[in-house]
Amino acid sequence: MHVSKSMILFVLLSAFLVTPLPADEGMWPMSEIHTLDLAKRGLAIQPQEIYNPGQTSLVDGICKLGGCTGSFVSADGLILTNHHCAFRAVQSASSAEHDYLTDGFHAAARREEIPAKGYTLRITESYRDVSAEVLSVVTADMDPAARTKAIERRTKELIAAAEQEYPGKRAEIAEMFLGKTYVLFLYTYLRDVRLVYVPPLAVGNFGGEEDNWMWPRHTGDFSFMRAYVAPDGSPADYAADNVPYQPRKVLAVNPQGVAPGDFVFLFGYPGRTYRHRTAAYLEFESRVRMPFVVDWYGWQIDTMERLGAADRVAAIKLAARSKGLSNTWKNYRGKLKGIGEVNLLARRRRAERQLQEYIAAEPDRQAGYGDVLPEMEQIYREITATAPRELTLQYLVETPTLLGIAFQVNEAVLERQKPDLERRSEYMDRNFPQTRQRLELNLQNVVPAADRAILTEILNRAARLQDDQRIPAVDRLLSGGDAPQAIADFLDGAYARTRLTDPAYALALLRESPTTLPEQDDPFLTLAAALYPHYQAQRETEKRRKGQLDNLYSRLLDIKQAFEGTDFIPDANGTLRLTYGHIKGYSPRDGVTYRPLTTLRGVMEKETGEEPFIVPPRLRELYEGRDFGRYASAAQDSVPVAMLYDADTTGGNSGSPVFDARGRLVGVNFDRAWEATINDYAWDAAYSRSIAVDIRYVLWFLEKYAGATHLLQEMNVAPEPE
Amino acid sequence: MHVSKSMILFVLLSAFLVTPLPADEGMWPMSEIHTLDLAKRGLAIQPQEIYNPGQTSLVDGICKLGGCTGSFVSADGLILTNHHCAFRAVQSASSAEHDYLTDGFHAAARREEIPAKGYTLRITESYRDVSAEVLSVVTADMDPAARTKAIERRTKELIAAAEQEYPGKRAEIAEMFLGKTYVLFLYTYLRDVRLVYVPPLAVGNFGGEEDNWMWPRHTGDFSFMRAYVAPDGSPADYAADNVPYQPRKVLAVNPQGVAPGDFVFLFGYPGRTYRHRTAAYLEFESRVRMPFVVDWYGWQIDTMERLGAADRVAAIKLAARSKGLSNTWKNYRGKLKGIGEVNLLARRRRAERQLQEYIAAEPDRQAGYGDVLPEMEQIYREITATAPRELTLQYLVETPTLLGIAFQVNEAVLERQKPDLERRSEYMDRNFPQTRQRLELNLQNVVPAADRAILTEILNRAARLQDDQRIPAVDRLLSGGDAPQAIADFLDGAYARTRLTDPAYALALLRESPTTLPEQDDPFLTLAAALYPHYQAQRETEKRRKGQLDNLYSRLLDIKQAFEGTDFIPDANGTLRLTYGHIKGYSPRDGVTYRPLTTLRGVMEKETGEEPFIVPPRLRELYEGRDFGRYASAAQDSVPVAMLYDADTTGGNSGSPVFDARGRLVGVNFDRAWEATINDYAWDAAYSRSIAVDIRYVLWFLEKYAGATHLLQEMNVAPEPE
Repeated sequence: MHVSKSMILFVLLSAFLVTPLPADEGMWPMSEIHTLDLAKRGLAIQPQEIYNPGQTSLVDGICKLGGCTGSFVSADGLILTNHHCAFRAVQSASSAEHDYLTDGFHAAARREEIPAKGYTLRITESYRDVSAEVLSVVTADMDPAARTKAIERRTKELIAAAEQEYPGKRAEIAEMFLGKTYVLFLYTYLRDVRLVYVPPLAVGNFGGEEDNWMWPRHTGDFSFMRAYVAPDGSPADYAADNVPYQPRKVLAVNPQGVAPGDFVFLFGYPGRTYRHRTAAYLEFESRVRMPFVVDWYGWQIDTMERLGAADRVAAIKLAARSKGLSNTWKNYRGKLKGIGEVNLLARRRRAERQLQEYIAAEPDRQAGYGDVLPEMEQIYREITATAPRELTLQYLVETPTLLGIAFQVNEAVLERQKPDLERRSEYMDRNFPQTRQRLELNLQNVVPAADRAILTEILNRAARLQDDQRIPAVDRLLSGGDAPQAIADFLDGAYARTRLTDPAYALALLRESPTTLPEQDDPFLTLAAALYPHYQAQRETEKRRKGQLDNLYSRLLDIKQAFEGTDFIPDANGTLRLTYGHIKGYSPRDGVTYRPLTTLRGVMEKETGEEPFIVPPRLRELYEGRDFGRYASAAQDSVPVAMLYDADTTGGNSGSPVFDARGRLVGVNFDRAWEATINDYAWDAAYSRSIAVDIRYVLWFLEKYAGATHLLQEMNVAPEPE
Repeated sequence: MHVSKSMILFVLLSAFLVTPLPADEGMWPMSEIHTLDLAKRGLAIQPQEIYNPGQTSLVDGICKLGGCTGSFVSADGLILTNHHCAFRAVQSASSAEHDYLTDGFHAAARREEIPAKGYTLRITESYRDVSAEVLSVVTADMDPAARTKAIERRTKELIAAAEQEYPGKRAEIAEMFLGKTYVLFLYTYLRDVRLVYVPPLAVGNFGGEEDNWMWPRHTGDFSFMRAYVAPDGSPADYAADNVPYQPRKVLAVNPQGVAPGDFVFLFGYPGRTYRHRTAAYLEFESRVRMPFVVDWYGWQIDTMERLGAADRVAAIKLAARSKGLSNTWKNYRGKLKGIGEVNLLARRRRAERQLQEYIAAEPDRQAGYGDVLPEMEQIYREITATAPRELTLQYLVETPTLLGIAFQVNEAVLERQKPDLERRSEYMDRNFPQTRQRLELNLQNVVPAADRAILTEILNRAARLQDDQRIPAVDRLLSGGDAPQAIADFLDGAYARTRLTDPAYALALLRESPTTLPEQDDPFLTLAAALYPHYQAQRETEKRRKGQLDNLYSRLLDIKQAFEGTDFIPDANGTLRLTYGHIKGYSPRDGVTYRPLTTLRGVMEKETGEEPFIVPPRLRELYEGRDFGRYASAAQDSVPVAMLYDADTTGGNSGSPVFDARGRLVGVNFDRAWEATINDYAWDAAYSRSIAVDIRYVLWFLEKYAGATHLLQEMNVAPEPE
């Protein structure tokens, strides 16, 4: 009951398909920053100091680190990001002997830094609108699937051309407005990233899933990594003699932090938002897809927890996966709750009715746009009708690790036969090494008991699908008998016979050909090959739908802009954005106010002595000894731990630097408040709040707990004089 | 985790055995009011207007209503109190046909008002310190039990003399400081009280046990009753031609209510606090007695819930009992949690060590007081050692209704043989009619299935007591066989044979004599008679311990006052007290602030459509239509529902009027915040908060929902002009 049923009554009712930017909403692409009056909002430095194309500015100190954001905080490529962003690297470096996950990790010297396997890093160098070039391949009479494929092909060509033009750089094309605008980004792309400092799990993940997506928060969700390059400064894979990367811009940290009401801004790489989508999409999401995922992920989380409880090695192997699933599971539950409570569906429906009335009011508009919303409705209805089969098939080939590996091997071998530009992106030469490394990391984390439990469950779910949703390859496996028994029999044989659990064997398969691969006669490869045509057919359907929807969304945007007389900014899509706001609490419910800064005191209050509320004894000692150094906030008489602000963020902003009005780093963004999980569909000034770990907690912890004064010095933060 | 583990670190550490009155702590007896500077606190009228012995003042508008407090709000004896204070009356007036409990009750005319069975009402008329008279019977060489009995006897005599001196009045002597000071109170005592208006359960008990002892709160915990007297104005039992009582003072209500920061004060009859008790007492309470009660009550609540779920008539019969148990159960859980979190035991132990050091520092003090704390320790150790048997025996004769009735009948017959002044208080002539009526009401609420389940359980618990704790009468019942089977066999026979379920029969037994009663050969009477000597012996032990402890507490108080150089005020003991404070929120934990006023919006937010969060459709309509009349608070743009303040209250303050600075009624006290459940042991400005229903909600509800404009007129609140 934490969020209001009647929140609809006090949230701004302005929210249309997309809110026309009231208050501080907005994940601004670099191209739009010049339209903002940031000084009026509270910025105390020149806008050119934060973003200045062609010159060095704050934004050059930001990087995209896997799916997160990072900040360069030293001239030697030291990166500050979240604990949860380093989680997979810490997990894969951990073993029963070296449990860095639990104990944390501290490289006292550079040579002790551990490679963060599978991690890559991007720094945005430039961008260019390529919409005309991309859409030049689209013709009016194209069928929808062909439209999608033509755009995909054109995109690959433009990328290849750009990478040829700028050797050593990486190019990506991002779709900004669906089917309408495309921007080519050029990145510096680094592949040697290492772990430098990670706090103990009890600090970095304090509160765990219980506190995740919640405020008040007391998680020390920070870590330090470092980017390396070849001795000549060029991007390189890990090598012992690589040298620290010298970033163009080093961000300054402000050990004084911020106070309630202060202006803040963030740069980052927010992943995905859906504010421009229709009510029909929202209905599919909230009534079909998210409930399916909540159920399926919930089942997996329970299963992994059960298996991990008895076996620490298994628990470590499953940790990152379980954490990822839990994060989505809880986020979706927050979204489903929030969507209901703010009546989002009804509000969008109402807004769309108004738009449809506006369209119908003029014959020209009716002729040009009258079909847009009804057709979209029809497509989402089709997606809803086929969802049970499509979602089951998707998770069947994605969730179980061994079958998933078999599926990828099978696909890789087929795709690698094609000319580079015709391949699916992950099998193109420029991406294949990463794909291969991900496969390798996945193989390391196979826990056969968990894998078998998961595959058993999803096969049984597939076996229970209704007649019009069946997957023939699964039906053949059941061969008409008792499904659970047939599945158990098949898996008895499959797990006994498969050699895919041997990483060397599995990776070697990537060198096979479409004719030699079947000779392996591996049960998972055989099943993957049988599933492949179904999955391919499904992808074709998706391309067709995307072609239809892109065209419709593009037209919808035109008429919406005409109706509302305003410009929109594009949904988040993993590209560099600016967002800003103020340090600010909120009222989650009648009679309750959340204040915007938490402190160490709250860490102690939450201590239970059991996961996820363990306080390391030394942390409690420092607290009880009031050894706060210069990091205590006077107003609170304790060390600030986390901060809350109304900037507009989403997943991908994890690790984003929070800057004060003078552009100094004062926090590391890592989460949103519970009510703000629906930000991805509708932002609202009343409850949309993001959460950062306070730089004062980071610095205090490094100095007092970790004794990592070398890192403070590297960041030009002199430790407190004795 | 809502309360802080480390709250100790930020609560005032001044708390000794009893806090020497910092801030606004204090349940002030009338005799101490003159020592207060209320104008300085915020009172805007003359102190004599609120209390003026011999003259009429605000305090004359207050009454003690059963275990609650009530306010006279009309010249015709209309009383405003809590819904939960009227609960038993509503329950006993309810049936499956007239479910006033669920639907509420509204007497449109006086003749429709329903007698509140078993309810009596007191108005404090005067008081007099009788310590010297009481203690004159105590001699130095008396054994402790004799001391207790001598005081009891002397008390009865003084009461009898006072009631003879003031015919028609009721006298009571209250022990203010244990074993030290005694005050005789003279009361007007009314016995015809009727139900006038009770909101539906969904409003009067909104939030139920889930929200009980919690803030933020949204319960419309108010009801109206009316006091009646004989046509000549004298107190009388219910009679159709009785007339409304004319109170000496009618309290004015203020439909404008209060705002955060406003000064407020309350009069009321707070029941019990234990702030002067020792650490050893607290240890017994928190480690032995309260955990026992939490377990036993919890079991009963579960059992009654199970039985009530299938049978609405049984549910109504069990409702008041279940509500009472739940209230204590949750209160104790709050206390146990709070005691641990603020480290109360360790703090008291530390304070007592300091006192002991102070005593030991002077040979005279050591000689005079050196034994006090060690002896008390010893007594509580004894109480702890015998607790399993004593608590079990107590609940065995008190909890199961039929056995309890048998026990009372048996005792009444024995006691009624004695001269009046020698009887236990409840069997004295002045009290026996009430005792008889309570018995009658208990008989009405017998649910045999629940009664048998409860008796089975407590007998089995008695059967499992260790060897040194056995109850011989229970052992004889078991006759050495398999206990559960023997108990079941006994109860098969007992419930088949007993005639106590017939109220007429049971009440008629009160006229039997000690020689004729055994002839009834009722299994419960027989068991009660067998248990009686054990219980009597236990009472003797208690008298002895009370004699010892009273003497020790009296001496402890002397030396504490010398040590601290301050006077104390006595613990609450059901007598009239004043308390004051301000409308004020608090921080229950790091990052969270509770605001001091809630609104209708919160009612809507909490709605789930299921008990205890049902919102009557008409209430929602009024809310959605924003039909707030003149009752909306401008600051909140909604009708205020509940308010929070730092006055010092406890059970018995239920129904207490909350007055504004001008002495106008602005709220009806009904609860405390979760963290404040430990008030009874230690008050603290940081978290001790009490809760009232806002008068604006009461008036708005009467006017807009209930259409009870006649009540508004009776209270001289003109309804809003059309």
